[in-house]
Amino acid sequence: MIKTISWDRGTVVMIDQRTLPHEERYITCREYRDVIAAINNMTIRGAPAVGIAAAMGIALGVLNSSGEQIKEDFYRICDAFSRTRPTAVNLFWAIDRMKSRFEKEIASTTHTKVTAIKKALTEEALCIHEEDIRANRRMGVHGKRLIKDGDTILTHCNAGALATGGYGTALGVIRAAHEEGKKIHVLVDETRPLLQGARLTSWEMKNEGIPATLITDSMAGSFMKRGIVNLVIVGADRIAANGDVANKIGTYSLAVLARENGIPFYVVAPISTIDCSAKTGDEIPIEERKAEEVLEFHSTKIAPEGFKAYNPAFDVTPKRYITAIITEKGIVTTPFGKRIKDLI
Amino acid sequence: MIKTISWDRGTVVMIDQRTLPHEERYITCREYRDVIAAINNMTIRGAPAVGIAAAMGIALGVLNSSGEQIKEDFYRICDAFSRTRPTAVNLFWAIDRMKSRFEKEIASTTHTKVTAIKKALTEEALCIHEEDIRANRRMGVHGKRLIKDGDTILTHCNAGALATGGYGTALGVIRAAHEEGKKIHVLVDETRPLLQGARLTSWEMKNEGIPATLITDSMAGSFMKRGIVNLVIVGADRIAANGDVANKIGTYSLAVLARENGIPFYVVAPISTIDCSAKTGDEIPIEERKAEEVLEFHSTKIAPEGFKAYNPAFDVTPKRYITAIITEKGIVTTPFGKRIKDLI
Repeated sequence: MIKTISWDRGTVVMIDQRTLPHEERYITCREYRDVIAAINNMTIRGAPAVGIAAAMGIALGVLNSSGEQIKEDFYRICDAFSRTRPTAVNLFWAIDRMKSRFEKEIASTTHTKVTAIKKALTEEALCIHEEDIRANRRMGVHGKRLIKDGDTILTHCNAGALATGGYGTALGVIRAAHEEGKKIHVLVDETRPLLQGARLTSWEMKNEGIPATLITDSMAGSFMKRGIVNLVIVGADRIAANGDVANKIGTYSLAVLARENGIPFYVVAPISTIDCSAKTGDEIPIEERKAEEVLEFHSTKIAPEGFKAYNPAFDVTPKRYITAIITEKGIVTTPFGKRIKDLI
Repeated sequence: MIKTISWDRGTVVMIDQRTLPHEERYITCREYRDVIAAINNMTIRGAPAVGIAAAMGIALGVLNSSGEQIKEDFYRICDAFSRTRPTAVNLFWAIDRMKSRFEKEIASTTHTKVTAIKKALTEEALCIHEEDIRANRRMGVHGKRLIKDGDTILTHCNAGALATGGYGTALGVIRAAHEEGKKIHVLVDETRPLLQGARLTSWEMKNEGIPATLITDSMAGSFMKRGIVNLVIVGADRIAANGDVANKIGTYSLAVLARENGIPFYVVAPISTIDCSAKTGDEIPIEERKAEEVLEFHSTKIAPEGFKAYNPAFDVTPKRYITAIITEKGIVTTPFGKRIKDLI
């Protein structure tokens, strides 16, 4: 099992996803600011993993707070985490869970001890982590039924152990099918600009011994047209109440191409990825990251000096292109709006 | 005017497209084998430019042949060029033109002098080059009518001066609209794996002062969906008799996404790109290049050691996704099969 993130005696340890696949390096965050930096600079990424990191970071941030300061510190730190990345809703969901727990602890007794609050927050963060892994495994159980022996599965970005508590959403389903003995082949989109597919998904597939082949993002449509792809499975950063899905840039194109070629398109995500306050995908904020990520390739400039670039990190796939959303509570199909409501 | 390729006193000079945009370096080919190497290693690329290079390379190859040897040398060299790259048909078209000229010269007099043959072959190669530039400009005249003031144009790979004799097919149309004073904005697909968009198209746009912005290939669909793209213009490596188009990998996806979003999709190519012997796109051979182009970038490995990759260099876009094909003889629309026949 890949240790994406863990709580280790008052520190948060995470694998550095920037140096993979060539170097397996772990970093230790001793202050909440280290965790914030790790989220911002993509040491840790992936919607569920970012949520877990924020929860642990908040628990870490108040460890040295005094009884007088803890409330102010707590809300300030929550606020700082909420400003890291705007699209993945699991971040805000995790912060809200930490807030609920904090408020419950404060309210529970008239003389709550500060140590009890700190312990409760650490517990809550670990609980979020454990729940995520359990949810991933449930998604695997539900989702693996959709994969047939001999299938070639296309995936985009990394929705694996590295993007979650440690098993994966989209890759969790692929893992579960593989663990069951199904012979599968994974086509890995490299996922420009940060190459999460080439660097991270391929690393997970290799470690797991799951047959996989790398392609550029631009090849996916052609492989679908040539009849090589049986299904597409991706993760999600935020799902609107109507079933529209925000995920890594390029997902929308894959969904359109899958429908055009009669290929099922599955989204795998925990319930915490569903944002019922966003009625449709239009209400999901899309993070624009710095142009250098596009203008450079592994720190080598690829465009002329002074050239401009756009860099939206995500796109929105309208629900009409989605065959089903696989959650830990079961598989949701159309009409998504109604079924998502029923599920929650 | 960018000097993509030129004939200089018994040598073939070309700009090295591998070192652009950072270094403007020219290489001099003194033997036909240098030209073959330049085509194989992508010093020169782009369907029309490869055709011109082959023609010049053949003329170069027989410069030192004796009267007894020239026929054998000529066919052997033609054969060597025909084995360089399989998809772009302009290569085979140019070789055939050189063969016709050679045979005409041989047949024209009973005692054709070897120097006259050599002169004729050089003339023919220069003629192919000049015709290509004239054809590009005609495509520009026809195609610029399709561009409106204020349009944002998406393009893929490089179908510019660098891909042709010196003006461009898709970029020739964009150039012509710009020269006419139309205010346009070009979205440049970076075009993995070899980044012809990021490196070459952006360089041409910058040199020309045409406003342009770089995106990753995976972003194109999202920009179309957001209503930012008014039209898509690409080149072609081979057009089948029915109007199916082989072009740089990723073109098919763009065409599907354009149709899905009600955006016109134009292909710009000279008549020499049409291969009437291929009834449909299914008969066009697709070059599979080495996996390292996908697995590495500028010699930096991006995937785990030993990982596999696919690398088809082109895909086929069925005619139903194409709004019009712009040639030097005019604009062809559906039914493509009939209209292509009429045109030729």
